[in-house]
Amino acid sequence: MEEKLAKLKTLLGEITDLTATAAILSWDQQTYMPPGGAEDRGSQLALLARLEHERWVSSEMGELLADLEKETAHLPADSFERALVRVTLRDYQKRTRVPAQWVSEFTEVTTLAQEAWVKARQQADFRPFQPHLERIVEMRREYSEFFKPYTHVYDPQLDDFEPGMKTAEVQAIFDEVRPRQVALLKAIQSRPQVDDSFLQQEFPEKAQWDFGVEVITRFGYDWQKGRQDKSAHPFTTSFGVGDVRITTRVDTRRLGTALFGTMHECGHALYDLGLDPAYHRTPLRHGASMAVHESQSRMWENLVGRSLPFWKFFYKRLQEYFPSQLGNVPLEAFYKAINKVEPSFIRVEADEATYNLHIMLRLELEIALLEGSLEVKDLPAAWNEKFQSYLGLTPPNDALGVLQDIHWSSGYFGYFPTYALGNLVSAQLWEKINKDIPDLEGQIEKGEFGALLSWLRENVHRWGRLYEPQDLVEKVTGSRITPQPYLRYLERKYGEIYGL
Amino acid sequence: MEEKLAKLKTLLGEITDLTATAAILSWDQQTYMPPGGAEDRGSQLALLARLEHERWVSSEMGELLADLEKETAHLPADSFERALVRVTLRDYQKRTRVPAQWVSEFTEVTTLAQEAWVKARQQADFRPFQPHLERIVEMRREYSEFFKPYTHVYDPQLDDFEPGMKTAEVQAIFDEVRPRQVALLKAIQSRPQVDDSFLQQEFPEKAQWDFGVEVITRFGYDWQKGRQDKSAHPFTTSFGVGDVRITTRVDTRRLGTALFGTMHECGHALYDLGLDPAYHRTPLRHGASMAVHESQSRMWENLVGRSLPFWKFFYKRLQEYFPSQLGNVPLEAFYKAINKVEPSFIRVEADEATYNLHIMLRLELEIALLEGSLEVKDLPAAWNEKFQSYLGLTPPNDALGVLQDIHWSSGYFGYFPTYALGNLVSAQLWEKINKDIPDLEGQIEKGEFGALLSWLRENVHRWGRLYEPQDLVEKVTGSRITPQPYLRYLERKYGEIYGL
Repeated sequence: MEEKLAKLKTLLGEITDLTATAAILSWDQQTYMPPGGAEDRGSQLALLARLEHERWVSSEMGELLADLEKETAHLPADSFERALVRVTLRDYQKRTRVPAQWVSEFTEVTTLAQEAWVKARQQADFRPFQPHLERIVEMRREYSEFFKPYTHVYDPQLDDFEPGMKTAEVQAIFDEVRPRQVALLKAIQSRPQVDDSFLQQEFPEKAQWDFGVEVITRFGYDWQKGRQDKSAHPFTTSFGVGDVRITTRVDTRRLGTALFGTMHECGHALYDLGLDPAYHRTPLRHGASMAVHESQSRMWENLVGRSLPFWKFFYKRLQEYFPSQLGNVPLEAFYKAINKVEPSFIRVEADEATYNLHIMLRLELEIALLEGSLEVKDLPAAWNEKFQSYLGLTPPNDALGVLQDIHWSSGYFGYFPTYALGNLVSAQLWEKINKDIPDLEGQIEKGEFGALLSWLRENVHRWGRLYEPQDLVEKVTGSRITPQPYLRYLERKYGEIYGL
Repeated sequence: MEEKLAKLKTLLGEITDLTATAAILSWDQQTYMPPGGAEDRGSQLALLARLEHERWVSSEMGELLADLEKETAHLPADSFERALVRVTLRDYQKRTRVPAQWVSEFTEVTTLAQEAWVKARQQADFRPFQPHLERIVEMRREYSEFFKPYTHVYDPQLDDFEPGMKTAEVQAIFDEVRPRQVALLKAIQSRPQVDDSFLQQEFPEKAQWDFGVEVITRFGYDWQKGRQDKSAHPFTTSFGVGDVRITTRVDTRRLGTALFGTMHECGHALYDLGLDPAYHRTPLRHGASMAVHESQSRMWENLVGRSLPFWKFFYKRLQEYFPSQLGNVPLEAFYKAINKVEPSFIRVEADEATYNLHIMLRLELEIALLEGSLEVKDLPAAWNEKFQSYLGLTPPNDALGVLQDIHWSSGYFGYFPTYALGNLVSAQLWEKINKDIPDLEGQIEKGEFGALLSWLRENVHRWGRLYEPQDLVEKVTGSRITPQPYLRYLERKYGEIYGL
């Protein structure tokens, strides 16, 4: 067994190097690459993807895993060796069950679909995109067939992003969330709106950048093991155990974009930097799932970054950076402004109280499309109807409605729900953290985040993919993913802000 | 033949992608990588090097080249197909004649040698470095044996950097150069020294950067196909036909460092950007040799950038960037200051009139070491003696003498002479350009560089490695590399500046 494990680790180490290399090229492409580099970058990335795929589907990999699955069966499920084999086998099957022919056709289909989506969105007209999405839905159904038997056709979609999570579980969770969030929104809308006009001023880029750096340095982001650059769409990327980088974008007319974006990406980066170094160069070296990853970014962005204790410490500093813009704005007014609730069309600009509603309607539509109970041609109408029902608005056109996200044109189905699940997990962890660190608020008011970060490292970050996401959440909080803590959090927070 | 050529090109395309990928990782390492990334970067680069090497020495490559060498023999020597096979075969033999065992031992030896060199230089004491260099010299002799038969043991060293160039040729060239440059230096030293004290002031970084960008934009550097970043040691690197980047370093106490460094790297980049796109993804996609490449960087840096016509156009702009530092310094004084001749210990800081002398002494010592007529233990004394004889100075310690350059500790022998040959080629081309563009000086005085760049593209850049360097120089100028133009250039330029 030892020898085979060593061989497996060598192979996985090579795959890690190839993945990291592709990540570096992709980071460069999104941060610094001049336009002239695009064509060659495409062929470099394609080669790296092929080299990585060859290693994954090699007969050596298949044989090692088949042998090791038997030879590690006697070990505890959460032993490194057995988890390594389980997780690697999972990734191996994802790659080998799907025929190469399907993958290459899907790449072609989604490449064309993305181009069509860009144009359709510009024209705010769904129709030219419709045939592309029809083909994608068809192929996503074929994809599910590769993973038979399944209980629900959507299960294999979800499983790509939330290992082990079932459609019925997500539906049950969201069924609890929906009425409470809709009711909360109605209650908020019956109250006087808060004023956030002072957030729409000119905030010079450098001061925004410097303040963000100051915040995440206090969070514990280690600049010896990372850096921050600008990109059109913020992201976090990991090149190795000591090189996890983030990007941000700055809008000089909107203070929140860079500020909360920086905290959000820092949350992702702290997760990757907190992984057990022993998992390095293996598939265990990632977060447990998209939802658990998102729980970390949303926690630092929202539960920390949009909280009153946080601003009790940081607001004076922010006023020093922007004396003419914020010097006369009291802390309370600022705190309310950054937490203003207002239904809007675009998901990525949604506040905490409405965000999950955007997600739920997407999940319902994805499931209906996959089940075949909704036809693609009827999607825009279905979108608008649900939007009116959950958020009380009807999108004036498809660009502000069904066409706003890139995900479907890229072929991602099963991705959206992880955003909302991440919110739920963040609050579920937060309740547990507050029990374990009773003085947490007091520490945050003093700008101290060390105990919080240590807790997260010890309880969440270090474990990587050793546990399935639901098992990890249960191990830490005592129950599987449940929406109650998040609903309590929303109702308490907005109850105070809006005087409900 | 067509089918085999297509296969060869596919294989070479993959190698190109791997080389470029490694170059991107290396660029990142030298510009933006946080310290924590070093360990993983090493393993990523090692994997890429292995993947590239495997493709080079594959039996498929060997068989294709053997067949294609015969099948292209009837084609003209400078046809694309025949040149492609010739150049690829050359690279193939360089890789296959040297045993893998030797390569891996040499990597170990030079890794340790570089560490020893860093320490030895810090202590300014050659002795701890001596045993490392002894082993390197021994192994470089072994290296030559892999390329028997040779006329001179130094030939295979030189050939790695100057394809086809022989030791005897370089010696003959340098024998012409040495007495004339020594005499010129003596003459200059008999005249009153020029004042360059105003160059040692504080020159803020941003203004230096912006001026440099303005200059190379006028040279024709295309920012859609490149960018400039900072690094400890400036370099040019190419990631593809539309992505050739440069780096520079800025010293706020020395105006010349960034300014002439930027022009120098721009010269390299213009060469790479001017290659025939048809050579892309093949080994023809590089400059003809190190010397020809250096002729381009030195031309833009010195023949253009340190010339009076250049500053007749640009000096007013420079004064606008630095009004308090240079507002009262007349053009003539500035021109003389940036061309001040003064023997000094460090090669990379040498002026045009003394630079080649630094190179010649290195070449003589390298040859003597390889021949065995000089023992490593006697190297510091030999260095100092030659230095006194050529430059009239004796280094006060080894750090300012024999230990100053990294090359020998890295195992590079045969590299240094290309720096001086580059100077010679730059002037040889310059005489021809001035014949073909009689108004060249007038254009430069107007800040126009379009005709110059077009000439270089047409006559030098586009050809890549299609011709051997000496053949290329002969094709363009009518004679093989000759030092007369450079000596004429130096004598005229410094004759005017120092009133000889």
